[in-house]
This record gives sequence, structure tokens and C-alpha cells, in this order.
Amino acid sequence: MQAGATTRIGMIGTGAIGGFYGVMLARAGYDVHFLLRSEFAAVADRGLRVASEVHGALTLDPVQAYRSAADMPPCDWLLVGAKTTSNADLAPAIIQAAAAGAKVLLLQNGLDVEDELRPLLPDSLHLLGGLCLVCVHRVGPGVVAHQALGAVNIGYHSGPGRDQAERMAIVEEGAGLFRTAGIDSQAMADLQQARWQKLVWNVPYNGLSVLLGASTTPLMADDHSRGLIQALMDEVVRGARACGHQIAPGYAEYLFTMTEKMPDYWPSMYHDYSHKRPLELDAIYGRPLAAAKAAGCELPKIEALYQALAFLDRHNADGERGKHGQ
Amino acid sequence: MQAGATTRIGMIGTGAIGGFYGVMLARAGYDVHFLLRSEFAAVADRGLRVASEVHGALTLDPVQAYRSAADMPPCDWLLVGAKTTSNADLAPAIIQAAAAGAKVLLLQNGLDVEDELRPLLPDSLHLLGGLCLVCVHRVGPGVVAHQALGAVNIGYHSGPGRDQAERMAIVEEGAGLFRTAGIDSQAMADLQQARWQKLVWNVPYNGLSVLLGASTTPLMADDHSRGLIQALMDEVVRGARACGHQIAPGYAEYLFTMTEKMPDYWPSMYHDYSHKRPLELDAIYGRPLAAAKAAGCELPKIEALYQALAFLDRHNADGERGKHGQ
Repeated sequence: MQAGATTRIGMIGTGAIGGFYGVMLARAGYDVHFLLRSEFAAVADRGLRVASEVHGALTLDPVQAYRSAADMPPCDWLLVGAKTTSNADLAPAIIQAAAAGAKVLLLQNGLDVEDELRPLLPDSLHLLGGLCLVCVHRVGPGVVAHQALGAVNIGYHSGPGRDQAERMAIVEEGAGLFRTAGIDSQAMADLQQARWQKLVWNVPYNGLSVLLGASTTPLMADDHSRGLIQALMDEVVRGARACGHQIAPGYAEYLFTMTEKMPDYWPSMYHDYSHKRPLELDAIYGRPLAAAKAAGCELPKIEALYQALAFLDRHNADGERGKHGQ
Repeated sequence: MQAGATTRIGMIGTGAIGGFYGVMLARAGYDVHFLLRSEFAAVADRGLRVASEVHGALTLDPVQAYRSAADMPPCDWLLVGAKTTSNADLAPAIIQAAAAGAKVLLLQNGLDVEDELRPLLPDSLHLLGGLCLVCVHRVGPGVVAHQALGAVNIGYHSGPGRDQAERMAIVEEGAGLFRTAGIDSQAMADLQQARWQKLVWNVPYNGLSVLLGASTTPLMADDHSRGLIQALMDEVVRGARACGHQIAPGYAEYLFTMTEKMPDYWPSMYHDYSHKRPLELDAIYGRPLAAAKAAGCELPKIEALYQALAFLDRHNADGERGKHGQ
């Protein structure tokens, strides 16, 4: 299927998320341009490769790769796959690569991840959020492993869209890009709802992978960790409700069962921790806790997990666990 | 001070706790006999040594050391310094070393640690519990480091003591042994009260040392871990109250401040974890949680900590954290 050749997509941050979706979109015929930093030379040389257990071995070569956003052509859609912890730093690149009235889509987890970026962007740019339910990880420069899933749920955050109808039309256009590339995608009427919904997965699995040094299979095989996962999911659902977002009954159970059936998976936060990168604690824990608390709702287990992770994140640069204070 | 030469004390399990208190009691003139297993040869050869930052370098040599309880003379007091996880296994040794009407004192943390042992002992033996607020750890065969503190709070569990007066007289006799040895000791009217009180320290510090791989100094230096410690302490106080035990106002703050002033300390659970020994999770977490729940009181942060620790305990034999499932 070759479609949408006139839509130009810029990928800002080509890690596991950017690499996977960028290759899928380029293979569907979109004109995709990739901004890269440390992996530029490898990708310019050998292209981008996705080893997918779903779609097979995919290669994009040559790649329209750039070291600097100043060299990119004006893009209609800018997809941001970088960490939430670097959003503010990306604003100049986003602005340079944006066509007039471009749509900026943050493919990131957590709550309010647009808030830091929004004031740095011109009012003429649309800002959207996308929640990716996908098992991908980077295995080397320009090489991404895709183990399972892929769906992207999109919602409108802010920008020149004048009313809900206009905003939903833009969200539908975004969802259409992914669907054309063979990826399930839902247009969500409420971005906050979509973000809370995705937290039902991220809050337990991201944090526990770091805290317990465990991937999904052992976490789902032990009664105590299963109980803790369910309790954390319940608290996310309660927090969402307190903030005015009803998560559908059975949704948490659906994610729990889906995770049980997934191939063994290390969430991205575990990779961040093991590479001593800052953890996305604010987006995934700090802001949801604050939002729930402001609505009068305590989430004690999530708070305990957050406090433990914040300690580990702070000491991660020191060296191995078990060496603090010795 | 040489006192109580007629009181014969048997030490069952000569690790850090048994070694420290045994040496202190022997130096005070008590007739102390030590049951040892793996460390018998080292202790018979070179004696017991306590490197104390409070009392200086203490040596007990020769030591009245035994490989088998069958060889021990009948003891008036039996002090058990082994892990709660092995109490049932110790019953035969305790019975062999006990004089008629002997007092068995479990120097162990946690709730209801006497329950497994009690039915295995003759009714004629008194069973008591002692809560040790002390920073000690084993540094080698027969060598114990004592960093700070030492107080032992004692209460009566069960046995032939006919009424509260008779039971308290026995508890006072036990506290007197320690006080004669220069160790602060309180006779507690209610053992459960004393056990809940000690949990205010053990629940946060033991578990977090394992979960976060951190000793007391870094745990007390970070706002997130401090907040978590305080929240866990608050939950212990709430759980105790639900079970009918009022912990004095300010007691948790006292332990918190005391820990801040202590030398850097790795709780015993951390040593158990790093040596791949079973953790005392049932005594310190499982039973308090169950008791509070039975009284209608949820302790969510303690429960989350317990669930996380139970996962780690189960997988501890597998190898290093971060390797599960790989």
C-alpha cells in the first residue's frame, strides 16, 4: 500500500519508538525525515532496521537522515519519540522542521507531558499527544526490536484548532497516518483520558521493572507481584476517576491479561535505569499523584513506588545498588 | 562488676545478636554457654570478639562453646538469637539445654514469632520475647561489630507464670540480667505492645535497605526516602492502634531522629538478602499486615513494600537483580 505521499513527516528523536513508527510510516509511502544525533552516521550508512516479531525484518535504506533540524524540509507532522525529560530542549528543532500550521505529536507516556513544551512553540502549531501500546526496544545504532503490539491512541492538546470538530478532524488525520501504515490507532476525544488510560499499564510495569529488576514474565508469575500490579492499576483507575476520567470497567483487567500473554518484555524505564539515564518519574508518577491529590484522592501504593524510584533515580549515577553508603 | 554467677545462661544461635549479648553477659559474670554450628571451631580456637564503638574491643576467651545442645549443662535462661525463620528447628536444642522451669527469651523482631515455637516446648518452660534496639553485625566467624545502642525490651509470652505479677517478676529478672551487664532493658507489661513498637523501626529500615540497596545514612539524606520512611512508620502506628496497642505520641519521631544520629547502618535484612538467606518477611510484614487487616485496618504502603520484598525474596536464589527473565 503506497499512500499519502504528499504528507511529509518529521521524526524528532529516532530511538525505539521513533525508529519503529518511522520505518512503518515510510514503508507505507509517507515522506519521512529523521532527525538523529549519536546514531546519524550508522543510520546514514546502513539505514534503519526493525526486527519485528509481528511484521518480519524491515529495512529502510536509504534513510532521509539529518544531523540538524535546520536541514530538514518543512514537515506537516512532527512526531516526537524522545524522552519526556528532554521536551524543552527539543523545541528549537521542532520549530525549525515545522511547516506552517504543522501538527506536533508527542509519542510519550505520562501526564501533562505537553505542558513544558507548549509555551516554547508558536501558537500556530497544533500540539497532540499519542499513547503507544507497543513492545519495542533499541538493540543497537539504527536497530530496533519490535516484540508485540503497536496501537497508538491520539488526542488533541492545544493549538489553533478552533472547536472540538476541527480538533477531532486533526486527530483523525493523525490516526489515519498510522492506520494507513497498518497500525491500529484511535482518535481520542480527550487526551487526558487517553493519558490516564495508558498510565494503568505504565505505573505498575515501568516502576516495578526498575524496583524489582524484573521483566513482565517473572512479574506476572508471582502472586505477590501480581497483587501489587493489580493494586497499582486500581489506584490509577481511582486517580483517573477523581480527576474526572472514567476508565472503562474491565480495562485494567484487559491490560493485565494482555501483559500475561505478551512475550517477556523490559519496559523502557528499565532500559533508562540500566543505562543510567534519568527516569520519567515526573510524567508517570509525580504529576498523576499531584493531580489526584489536588482532587482529594490519595494513591498510597503509587506514592510509595514513586518515593522508592525517586531515591533510586537520584542515586543511579553513584554506582550499583547495594553500594550506597559503603 | 561480677554478679549473678549462679544464673546459667544458654545462648542458642550465636550470630551478631547472640555474640554481642552473650559476651556482655559473660563479662558481667554470668555463666554463659554458647551453642554454635558452623562457627564452633573458630570460636573454640580464638574465642568470641566484639569490636564495639561503645564499649571498646571485648574478647571472651575461652568460650564455653558446644556443637550440640545435648552437651550443654541445664540453663536457667535460654536466649535465642537465631532468625525467626528457624524457630521451629531450634525446639529440640532449647528443650535439651533447658533446666526445669527455664525461661526461653527470643531476641527477635516481628509479630507472633513465639507462635510456631510454643507448641513444640513443654508447658513447664516460660517463653518470653525481647526486642533489641541495637546496631550489630557479624564480620567473621566469632567476630561481631557493635556500632551503637543496645537496649532490650522484654515481655512475657506464655508459660507457667500464673498471673501478671508472677509473669512480671520473671520479666524483671530477665531485664535485670541485661542491666547487670550494663545494657539498658525495660520490662514491658505487654509483649505485643513491645513488638509493635519495635516494628516502627523494622518495617521501614529493614525493607528499604533491601529494596533500595541502601543503608541508613543515604536513606535519611533523601527527601523521598525520608517521606516514605515516615509514611511507613505512621502506618505501623495506625496498625498497632487498630490492634489495641497505643504507641506513645512522638515515639516514631524519636526513632526517626535517633536513626539520623546513628552511625551508618545496614539492617540485618540487608545482610540476609545479600547472603541469599530467607528474609524475615512473615514476622515483620506478613503477620502485622494480617493482624491489622483482621482489625479492619489497611496499611497500603506496608503492603506494597511487603509484596515487593516477597518477590525479591523468592527470586533471590536465581542470581542478581536485573537478570530475572533474561
